[in-house]
Amino acid sequence: MSDFHAPVDDILFSLRHVARADRLADWDDELAGEIIGHFASFAEGRIAPLDASGDAQGCRLENGRVRMPDGFAEVYAELAGQGWQGLSAPEEFGGQGLNGAVRAGVSEIFSGANHSLQMVTSLVPGAISVLMRFGTDEQREAYIPPLAVGRWLSTMALTEPGAGSDLAAIRARAVKDGDAWRIDGEKIFISGGDQDMSEGVFHLVLARTGPADSGVRGLSLFACLSDLPDGSRNAIGVTRIEEKLGLHASPTCQLAFDGAVGELIGEEGGGLKAMFAMMNHARLDVALQGVAHAARAADLARSYAAERKQGRDANGREITIDQHPDVARMIEECDALAIGGRALCHIALVAEELGAAHDFVEFMTPVCKYFCTEAGTRAADLAIQVMGGYGYLREYGAEQNWRDARICSIYEGTSGIHARTTATRSLSMNGGAGARAFAGFLRESGGDFAGLAEKWEAEAKRVAASDDAAAEAHGFMELTCDFAWRAALARVARASEAAPAISDRIDRVCERFGIAT
Amino acid sequence: MSDFHAPVDDILFSLRHVARADRLADWDDELAGEIIGHFASFAEGRIAPLDASGDAQGCRLENGRVRMPDGFAEVYAELAGQGWQGLSAPEEFGGQGLNGAVRAGVSEIFSGANHSLQMVTSLVPGAISVLMRFGTDEQREAYIPPLAVGRWLSTMALTEPGAGSDLAAIRARAVKDGDAWRIDGEKIFISGGDQDMSEGVFHLVLARTGPADSGVRGLSLFACLSDLPDGSRNAIGVTRIEEKLGLHASPTCQLAFDGAVGELIGEEGGGLKAMFAMMNHARLDVALQGVAHAARAADLARSYAAERKQGRDANGREITIDQHPDVARMIEECDALAIGGRALCHIALVAEELGAAHDFVEFMTPVCKYFCTEAGTRAADLAIQVMGGYGYLREYGAEQNWRDARICSIYEGTSGIHARTTATRSLSMNGGAGARAFAGFLRESGGDFAGLAEKWEAEAKRVAASDDAAAEAHGFMELTCDFAWRAALARVARASEAAPAISDRIDRVCERFGIAT
Repeated sequence: MSDFHAPVDDILFSLRHVARADRLADWDDELAGEIIGHFASFAEGRIAPLDASGDAQGCRLENGRVRMPDGFAEVYAELAGQGWQGLSAPEEFGGQGLNGAVRAGVSEIFSGANHSLQMVTSLVPGAISVLMRFGTDEQREAYIPPLAVGRWLSTMALTEPGAGSDLAAIRARAVKDGDAWRIDGEKIFISGGDQDMSEGVFHLVLARTGPADSGVRGLSLFACLSDLPDGSRNAIGVTRIEEKLGLHASPTCQLAFDGAVGELIGEEGGGLKAMFAMMNHARLDVALQGVAHAARAADLARSYAAERKQGRDANGREITIDQHPDVARMIEECDALAIGGRALCHIALVAEELGAAHDFVEFMTPVCKYFCTEAGTRAADLAIQVMGGYGYLREYGAEQNWRDARICSIYEGTSGIHARTTATRSLSMNGGAGARAFAGFLRESGGDFAGLAEKWEAEAKRVAASDDAAAEAHGFMELTCDFAWRAALARVARASEAAPAISDRIDRVCERFGIAT
Repeated sequence: MSDFHAPVDDILFSLRHVARADRLADWDDELAGEIIGHFASFAEGRIAPLDASGDAQGCRLENGRVRMPDGFAEVYAELAGQGWQGLSAPEEFGGQGLNGAVRAGVSEIFSGANHSLQMVTSLVPGAISVLMRFGTDEQREAYIPPLAVGRWLSTMALTEPGAGSDLAAIRARAVKDGDAWRIDGEKIFISGGDQDMSEGVFHLVLARTGPADSGVRGLSLFACLSDLPDGSRNAIGVTRIEEKLGLHASPTCQLAFDGAVGELIGEEGGGLKAMFAMMNHARLDVALQGVAHAARAADLARSYAAERKQGRDANGREITIDQHPDVARMIEECDALAIGGRALCHIALVAEELGAAHDFVEFMTPVCKYFCTEAGTRAADLAIQVMGGYGYLREYGAEQNWRDARICSIYEGTSGIHARTTATRSLSMNGGAGARAFAGFLRESGGDFAGLAEKWEAEAKRVAASDDAAAEAHGFMELTCDFAWRAALARVARASEAAPAISDRIDRVCERFGIAT
C-alpha cells in the first residue's frame, strides 16, 4: 500500500483560488498554509499509520466500556495536546478561533488519513456551534473549554430503532426533575458513544418533552455528560457496538439512557432546530470525508498504476498501466471527482463564513453532501478496478478506502433524503431564494453555464410544480449535482494557472470532462 | 438478514420463455424444473447457511495446507454425493450428461447461496470441457471420472506476479523429463489452490515450453495432480493465501511449482487456445455470479423494505419504506439488472448449446461478463442504500453481498479487458460476423430496436475505423451493454405473460426502464 499523502497543494489551491477564501476578513494566507501543512505532517506521520491497523483490530466492548484499537489513545493525546480539537473554537473558551475554511482543510486531511479517528473526534465543532448559538452563558463556560482542549469528545445521539430518517418517531423521553431533566430511552448508531481516549463524553441527545404524538415539535435537545460533576457515572450504558462493513475503528454504539441526568440546550420543543444547526455542520464535514476518499482513491490508483508494468508500446518497450487509456480514464475520473467535489464544499464553506449568502449555503449543503459522498464511493470503486486483483486485497488499501467511504452516503441523512430535501424544501424555501442563488452560481461559472443555468431553472420549475416531487427527486438531484460539479470544475480550470505545481494535472482532468481551460 | 431464496421461478421463466431452451434437442422441460427446484432446496437448506459463517471465519493456511471454514467439507461431501459436480459431465465418464442451460440455472443458485463455495467447486465443468476438446482418450478416462464424482476439484493456474492480464509475460517453465514434464514457477490468485474438501486437486497450469521471448505462442497447458498415482504429493506448495475484501471462504492461493510433474494437454504451444476454451466457460459462469448477486440484492432489499416502517401516507397511516418512490426505484433497478442480465446469459448459453451461432456466442461472452458483473456490484450497492444504516451492518448480509460481488468484474479478465476485446477483436473477427450477429439480436428484439441496431452499427463502424480503439473501448462497451440489456428486457417483457406468478413484478420493472410490455 502506498503511504498516505495529504493533498496539501490541491486543498490550498482550492481554498485560495477557487473558493477565494482571501475574501474572508480573518483570512491569513500564510498562516492557513502553515497550519494545513503542519497538520498534514502530523497526519502522515502519526494518524495515517493507524488506519490499516485500526481497521484490522477494530473496537471492542469490554465490561460495558469501549476499547479503541492500539495506539489510538496515544495519538489522540497528541492531537488534543497540539490544540487541534479547538482549532475553530472561540479564543475566549480556549480555542484558536480560526475560521471554518482552515478547519475544512484540516478536516479533509484527517479523514483521508484515518476516517475512523476523524469520525470519533469530529463532532466537537458542531457541538460547540450549537452551544454558541443555543446555549446559555453558563453552559458555554462550562462545556466549551473541555471540548476545545480535548478533555471531552462529543456525540450526536439522535437515531433510535425505527427512527432514523424519521425523527417524528423518536421515543426517548425527558422529564423534569427539579432543575435538571432525566432522560430514558435507547439510541442507536451513535458514533463514539464511548471510547478510551478522552476523559469524558459530551452527548447531545434528542428526546421527547412533549406528548408521544407531538411529532418533531415535541423534541428538545439535551446535554448529557458521561461523567457527572460529583465524579459518578451518568446513567448512560453502552449495550452493544455494531459489526460494520468499514470504519472499524469508530465505535458505533447502542446507548441505553436510564434516567440519565441532562440539561436542556435551547428551548423546550426547539430540539429539531438546534439539531439541524449541528447536522448542517456535520453534513459539510461528511461531504469532505467523501472528498478525502476520492482524493485518496486518486492517489492510490495513480501510485499503483505508475509502478505496475503491463504490455508494451508500439516500439516494444514495456509500459506501466497508466499509459493504457482505460486506466488513465479511471484515474482522471477519481481526480475530477475529488477536485470538483472539494471546490463545491469550499465554495459553500467560504460563502457560509462570509455570512452574506445564507440561502445559497442552505441550498448547497445537501448538494455537497450528496455529490461528494457518492463521489467518494465511486472513486474508491474505480481505484479498486485500476488495481485489478490487487485492489481486492487487504494490503493494498483500496478496499478499506471503499469500505470506509461507503458510510458517507448513508449517515447524516441518506442520499435519498438529501435528494428529497433538494427537490422539495430547497426549491421553495424563502420564496425560491436558494434556487435563485444556485442558478446564479451556475450562471457565473462562465462559458456555457448561462445556458445550463437556464436549463436547470426550467427543470426546477417543473419539479416544484409536480404533483409528486418525491418521485422526481432522484433524477433532479442527479442533474443538479452534475451541473454543480461541472460549474465547480469550470472555476477550477479558470484558476489553475495560479498553481503551477499542479496545473498540468488539473487541466488534463478538466479537459477529460469537456471543461475548457 | 433474510434467508436466501433461490429465484427458481425467475430462472425457469428466463430459460423457458426468454431464451427458449425448448429449442434444444435434449431439453426436458419437466426434468429441468425438477433439477433446478431440487438444487434450490439443497442450496437454501444446506449451502446458504454457511455463507455468513464462512465469511466471518475465512480460510486458514496451516502447515502448508488450506483449512476451509467449519461445515464446508461436510456440505461438499453431500454436494458431490448427490452428483452435482458431474451434472453436465458426459455420462460415459460418470456424469449426468445434462446440457449447459440446466447447469446455468444450478450455477446461479449456487452463487447466490454461497459464492465462495461455488467458486471453489465451479471450475470443474471448464476443466472437463478442456479435456473433452484437447485431451487424449487416456487423459479423458483418467481425469474426468474423478472430477465428475467430486473426488477431485480443479483450478486454473494462469496468473503470475506481473502477468495478470498480460499472459505473454508468463515465466513458469515446463521442461521435458522422459514421458512427463517438470514445471517450475510461481502462480498467484489461484482460487481453490488447496482445500480440505476433496481428495485431490486437478490443476490446469499454463507454463512456457518455448524460449523466454516466445510470447503467448510459447505457452502450453499442463495437468498437474496434487497427489501423484504413487500416493506421494506432487511438488506444488501453497506459499500463502490472500486476505481479501470478500470471498473469504474461497482460498486464493499463491502456489510454488518446484519441479512438479505435469502432463501436456493438447499441443505444445497450444496453451493459449486451450486456456481460452476454459476461460470462456468460466466467463459466462462469472457473469451468472453477477446475476446471482443482483438477484440476491433485489431479494434482500425487497424483504427489508417490505418490513421496515417509516413515515406516513396522506391518511396518516404508517407505511413501509417500499412505498417511498426512491426506495421502489432502487429495488426495481436491482431487479431489472438481475432479470436483464440473466436473460442475456441464458440467450448466449442456449445459442452456444444450439451450436449454430458461434460468432454470436463469441461476441456475447465478454458482453455478458462485463454487463452482469458490473450489474451485480451496482445492485449490491443499491441494496445497501435501501437498507440505510442497516445495510452497513454485517448482520443484514447486504454488505457481504457487495464484497463478494465486487471480485466478479476483476477476475476472469477485468471489465477493461473485456471492453477492449469487444471494441477490437470482437468487431473484426470472422469478417465482422460477430458484430452482424449482435446487431441482428438487437434488431430482432422488436419495437424500437431496429433503430437502436442501426445506431449501434454506425458506432461500431466508427470504432472499428478509429486510430485508437483502446481509447474508445469504455464508451463503446457501455453503449453495447446498455443496448444488449434493453433488448433482453424487451424479450423478457414480451414473454412475461407466460409466467403469471411473476409477471406483475416483471412488467413493473420493465416499465420503469421504458420497456413496453
